Amino acid sequence: MEFSLGELVSRLGGELVGDPSLRVRQIATLEKARNGDLAFLANPKYRSALESSQASAFILSPKSAALTDRPSVLTPDPYLYFARAAQLFNPPKRPAPGIHPSAVVASSLPASVSVGPNAVIGEGCVIAENCVIGPGCVLGDGVALGADSLLHAGVRIYADCVLGARAIVHSGAVIGSDGFGFARDPDKRWVKIPQIGRVVIGDDVEIGANTTIDRGALDDTVIGNGVKLDNLIQVAHNVHIGDDTIMAGQSGIAGSSHVGKRLMMGGQSGISGHLSVADDVVVSAATVITKSIDKAGVYTAMLPQMPHADWIRNFAHLRRLDAMADRVRELEKQLAAKES
Amino acid sequence: MEFSLGELVSRLGGELVGDPSLRVRQIATLEKARNGDLAFLANPKYRSALESSQASAFILSPKSAALTDRPSVLTPDPYLYFARAAQLFNPPKRPAPGIHPSAVVASSLPASVSVGPNAVIGEGCVIAENCVIGPGCVLGDGVALGADSLLHAGVRIYADCVLGARAIVHSGAVIGSDGFGFARDPDKRWVKIPQIGRVVIGDDVEIGANTTIDRGALDDTVIGNGVKLDNLIQVAHNVHIGDDTIMAGQSGIAGSSHVGKRLMMGGQSGISGHLSVADDVVVSAATVITKSIDKAGVYTAMLPQMPHADWIRNFAHLRRLDAMADRVRELEKQLAAKES
Amino acid sequence: MEFSLGELVSRLGGELVGDPSLRVRQIATLEKARNGDLAFLANPKYRSALESSQASAFILSPKSAALTDRPSVLTPDPYLYFARAAQLFNPPKRPAPGIHPSAVVASSLPASVSVGPNAVIGEGCVIAENCVIGPGCVLGDGVALGADSLLHAGVRIYADCVLGARAIVHSGAVIGSDGFGFARDPDKRWVKIPQIGRVVIGDDVEIGANTTIDRGALDDTVIGNGVKLDNLIQVAHNVHIGDDTIMAGQSGIAGSSHVGKRLMMGGQSGISGHLSVADDVVVSAATVITKSIDKAGVYTAMLPQMPHADWIRNFAHLRRLDAMADRVRELEKQLAAKES
Repeated sequence: MEFSLGELVSRLGGELVGDPSLRVRQIATLEKARNGDLAFLANPKYRSALESSQASAFILSPKSAALTDRPSVLTPDPYLYFARAAQLFNPPKRPAPGIHPSAVVASSLPASVSVGPNAVIGEGCVIAENCVIGPGCVLGDGVALGADSLLHAGVRIYADCVLGARAIVHSGAVIGSDGFGFARDPDKRWVKIPQIGRVVIGDDVEIGANTTIDRGALDDTVIGNGVKLDNLIQVAHNVHIGDDTIMAGQSGIAGSSHVGKRLMMGGQSGISGHLSVADDVVVSAATVITKSIDKAGVYTAMLPQMPHADWIRNFAHLRRLDAMADRVRELEKQLAAKES
Repeated sequence: MEFSLGELVSRLGGELVGDPSLRVRQIATLEKARNGDLAFLANPKYRSALESSQASAFILSPKSAALTDRPSVLTPDPYLYFARAAQLFNPPKRPAPGIHPSAVVASSLPASVSVGPNAVIGEGCVIAENCVIGPGCVLGDGVALGADSLLHAGVRIYADCVLGARAIVHSGAVIGSDGFGFARDPDKRWVKIPQIGRVVIGDDVEIGANTTIDRGALDDTVIGNGVKLDNLIQVAHNVHIGDDTIMAGQSGIAGSSHVGKRLMMGGQSGISGHLSVADDVVVSAATVITKSIDKAGVYTAMLPQMPHADWIRNFAHLRRLDAMADRVRELEKQLAAKES
Repeated sequence: MEFSLGELVSRLGGELVGDPSLRVRQIATLEKARNGDLAFLANPKYRSALESSQASAFILSPKSAALTDRPSVLTPDPYLYFARAAQLFNPPKRPAPGIHPSAVVASSLPASVSVGPNAVIGEGCVIAENCVIGPGCVLGDGVALGADSLLHAGVRIYADCVLGARAIVHSGAVIGSDGFGFARDPDKRWVKIPQIGRVVIGDDVEIGANTTIDRGALDDTVIGNGVKLDNLIQVAHNVHIGDDTIMAGQSGIAGSSHVGKRLMMGGQSGISGHLSVADDVVVSAATVITKSIDKAGVYTAMLPQMPHADWIRNFAHLRRLDAMADRVRELEKQLAAKES
């Protein structure tokens, strides 16, 4: 893949400063770029890296245009432009269509679909055009998969779950396992509640490696369009996730919580069960949300790291905060009594 | 599956109010129920949903009996009755017995067992009657599996591990991987300690998707009867888990800790290594237990979420709690000096 | 496997006290040891267990030599000696070389390599001598695997990733999945940034069950020699991990952070993105590092567990710490005013 800067701008937009016939072969960071590479400056504080960069051309914001006299593409959001240029230089490698002879397929598939070695597809599945089902994937009966979706090796989808178009699902992800629902009997033993809902996932969703999404108990677990889930995430039964939500690694949402659009969850963060969260909320890393949130904004609950000895000294008081508050109140009372 | 209310009550108990010949087809929530459905009211605060529900019949506690004049089954624990009725309406779908020709099986199995496509079963395994081993599962040599157990697609069980009867194991779960044991040599390199114990699991245990349970170092990792583990849980080597324990998603127990019966662990909670925890302990979500617990009760250590700006303002003081305590003490001293 | 104490000492060193012809068959804990076993005392506080142990011989430090008159091997680090003796008694069981007929292999492999049933190996892979690739593993095109490496069942390695010699990778681990990189467009939708880096892993690395390691965005994700990762760990794109680092279960490192040598991370701990961490740092369990660390030492940020009622009482004040600090300052001011 190689493009002239003129071709690039005609495909992706942006204002070209310099020779439109200059050819670039790959996208790179300022530091690692070599001759033939296109590098980007997303943050003006890295301008010194720009000066020393070996890149042949740059993606810059208009206000950084004066930082170099090498060929540049000017665009209001260089990082977004970089993403699109990177897609252009690196189209996904898709295996040729066809069903590997070792795959076990009980549904009829369009000729454009690729099924890898040792994959297993149950009965009554509806797989749209151009899907890729990687080696060792297992799809239960009645699974639906939208057009152009890509399942990497070893994805498991339980019966009757639905994924939209252009899904990307990474290895080891599990979609549609039983939700965690039990009633307790008088002997304090757990009685399983059958999980008869499905998982229903919108278009343009990416699901990370070893992430798990449980099916609903009676109703469905629902994931909107454009949602991006990182690795090792837990989405419990009957959760609803709004469009364009993004969740970082090892975060999770407990059962029946409904979160709004464009939620951003940091790594190792969590949302407790049966809550509702407004649109445009940001949950900081390692923060657990235990009450519903009805207002957009950033929410945090995280401890500042300390050298261990400092932590020992400071945290002893955490167990006695209530007593300390009493003592401050008492001091105030005494002092007030003196004043009068 | 369709039952008359009379059949239902004769199978599951409860007091029937209304026509015993009325037939119901499925269990449903109050909101989603339609004609032919049986809905349940577990919490009297949802009584308005009951009034507007389209369900044909209800499961109610005796004290809610007056809330409707539609047919009802009265029972002291409607949620438990719901669980049992849901099981009746939704018996698990089990594939037909037999070994798929693509499976690679080196042990002899009862004729009642079902082995899915591309599953692999090692030598010397003892698989009891009516087990289902899903597509792509891998069982090492010498694995034992109790009667009526169900392994969903892609479960991995290492050599010599033992599961009891009626186990349900979800996709991607790993049982018997090496415990995390190393000694440090004088060059500060890690020397692996072979993990020669097993994992031994009781009856009626459910294990969630992508959960991992490590084998013991010298002795076994032991999980009691009736234990329910959600997704993405880590159980380290030599842990003992008491009967009827329930652990929510992304929780974990570190090496050699022994926990009692009926432990309940919230999502993302943890128990450090080498601890002992009494029976009937509840660990709140996102709480880490770092000291042994010898008394039943609820234990918590979790931060309240705050708008980020509030958090910045408040948490700066956490690093200086010790100094604040000193200042309060000094104030008390000065005030006392004034008094005298 | 059975050794005389004389053979043991000639292989592993240590000073033998007692009969060199005494034969021992296995390593065991003091409590569980029987006749024929070799037990070890790593911590003098367990001396009473030594007295009642049924072991035939012991591994002891020289200063514990007087605690028994049974045969003993004296060594300055009994735990390390135990690890090495345990390796001697329990050599890993490796399957016979050869490719199982059900495996789908598109690269040429040395005759010493073992490939299990239903494994899939892409084109252009470079697999060194004596590797074991377990049942159901999937290696993408161009994967390199160093000599004597062991992939347990169901490991997935994406295209072009590199592992060094003597790797041990447990079931369900995923290496080389896409890093989590997106740019946001003006409509607040996420645009995928292709992840074209690799994962490059040094020698003697162990990777736990269901752990995930993402490939780099433009450059590589790099893991040094001798690194040990437990289960369910997340290593994000472009992370660099220094030699001999050890990470406990459910911990994680966010994108682009570079950590030094011999980092030790406790269970459920995390390191935020774009940080740098010095050599010889210890991160306590459940602690999240949000600022770079430039000095060796132990760092902690964890709440002490409390009975729930105590927690309710104490943690209410956390939201008002700033106000409490103001009140203390005010009291100091008033008291100072009185003094003058």
